[in-house]
Amino acid sequence: MRNYESEADKYFARDLTQRERAIFEGAITLGALYHQFIGVPVSRDPRILEALKSCMEACMSLQPYKEKVEVKIRSDMITGEKKHPFDYETLKGKHLDVKVTSKYGGARAVLRMRYIPELDYTLMYVESITEEPSE
Amino acid sequence: MRNYESEADKYFARDLTQRERAIFEGAITLGALYHQFIGVPVSRDPRILEALKSCMEACMSLQPYKEKVEVKIRSDMITGEKKHPFDYETLKGKHLDVKVTSKYGGARAVLRMRYIPELDYTLMYVESITEEPSE
Amino acid sequence: MRNYESEADKYFARDLTQRERAIFEGAITLGALYHQFIGVPVSRDPRILEALKSCMEACMSLQPYKEKVEVKIRSDMITGEKKHPFDYETLKGKHLDVKVTSKYGGARAVLRMRYIPELDYTLMYVESITEEPSE
Amino acid sequence: MRNYESEADKYFARDLTQRERAIFEGAITLGALYHQFIGVPVSRDPRILEALKSCMEACMSLQPYKEKVEVKIRSDMITGEKKHPFDYETLKGKHLDVKVTSKYGGARAVLRMRYIPELDYTLMYVESITEEPSE
Repeated sequence: MRNYESEADKYFARDLTQRERAIFEGAITLGALYHQFIGVPVSRDPRILEALKSCMEACMSLQPYKEKVEVKIRSDMITGEKKHPFDYETLKGKHLDVKVTSKYGGARAVLRMRYIPELDYTLMYVESITEEPSE
Repeated sequence: MRNYESEADKYFARDLTQRERAIFEGAITLGALYHQFIGVPVSRDPRILEALKSCMEACMSLQPYKEKVEVKIRSDMITGEKKHPFDYETLKGKHLDVKVTSKYGGARAVLRMRYIPELDYTLMYVESITEEPSE
Repeated sequence: MRNYESEADKYFARDLTQRERAIFEGAITLGALYHQFIGVPVSRDPRILEALKSCMEACMSLQPYKEKVEVKIRSDMITGEKKHPFDYETLKGKHLDVKVTSKYGGARAVLRMRYIPELDYTLMYVESITEEPSE
Repeated sequence: MRNYESEADKYFARDLTQRERAIFEGAITLGALYHQFIGVPVSRDPRILEALKSCMEACMSLQPYKEKVEVKIRSDMITGEKKHPFDYETLKGKHLDVKVTSKYGGARAVLRMRYIPELDYTLMYVESITEEPSE
């Protein structure tokens, strides 16, 4: 049977560690999620936020080597209530708190994206990396 | 109480009809939906397609003067089954069959977007417009 | 020779006027431009803003029945100067002032998108429509 | 003077190496570039492709710790020539050949995204990593 994983691995630098690969795969998903979904119309309605969260988690988990994608939408930072036609917002980085867990071989990386008020910036960062004896 | 609708109306051409306004509002949503969601990772998994559909319908309905946004995702045109890490696709126009119903005053427009094989193009078009005596 | 235009026209409602079609085509581009480009990294650097403006104008003009797409980016509303790694912004609706001119048959529609402070909303609207005797 | 870099660094895992950080920062940009620009209307017209390339390079270089972003658009894989209103395409992964060079401390990572026909997949991968004595 064809081994797509080892075919893809041939393109990667020889000296790449499993930790580095896990970080690489997770970081792609952080950048992808932000730039795919920023701009989506949102309001405070919990059903709408739940639908958006489910979509982001389900779809972004399809990317390679994802173990888990967890999205919290900060409804406290959304003011739109659809009381009139223009009373809604579009999704911004500050609305998101995302945790991506990626796994490659024995390495697992937990990556995060959330708004940091002191920096006035939606920071993407590596929260932790763990290694287990690879199979 | 503040009337946001009439405040916004002041920016529109004086001679615009209600039919034209309904078409205008609906067409924005067709263009917006395509360019917001094209590129989202998808597979044939019905739970993933359902999550994406629900998100598109819920979020895009927030745009002004939308009565209904209905999305069908053509899973028959999606081959990814996630049997290996790279076995998924990204959403394309040909996967979508969208119906947007917009209403302004007494005019209701039904707009559509779907892939037309003969044109090899994801066509956006006006399916029908109806008018009732405006309130 | 194949007439793609009349093939596409068959999908449109019989009673659609040329004015309505011109508005429809232009409105698609307003919605598309916003939801395609919102989230792009930007700073006050004029070369960056010029590159973004040129791209938006050139690419969005490819959509059907566009006569002209004109984009102004409000650099006065952008604060990022790249004095440190996080000193930039992502494109938002309030940064944009867009004019789309669409033409179908003898009808020409001028559509606009810009931030309206009183509404705290990036409004898309029909600025004017003109008709000449159709060819 | 405020040091934004060290403020941001505090959020990252203690045991992260400079190589890992350089890979992390570059991978974000690969994911971001794909999901921001996929769907943009394109044709074979060299002026349009040049405008899109310049925009992607200029804007994505703003993301933190980017040394260079190089984009080639594979015009040989684009068929649209705008001979009729629907004769254009929307940007797909297979049209892109992207090289991102990111640098953090003494580590420099060269990351790549391009379509691999054997995998029928637009693969993102780490091409090389080099380290110099950090300053």
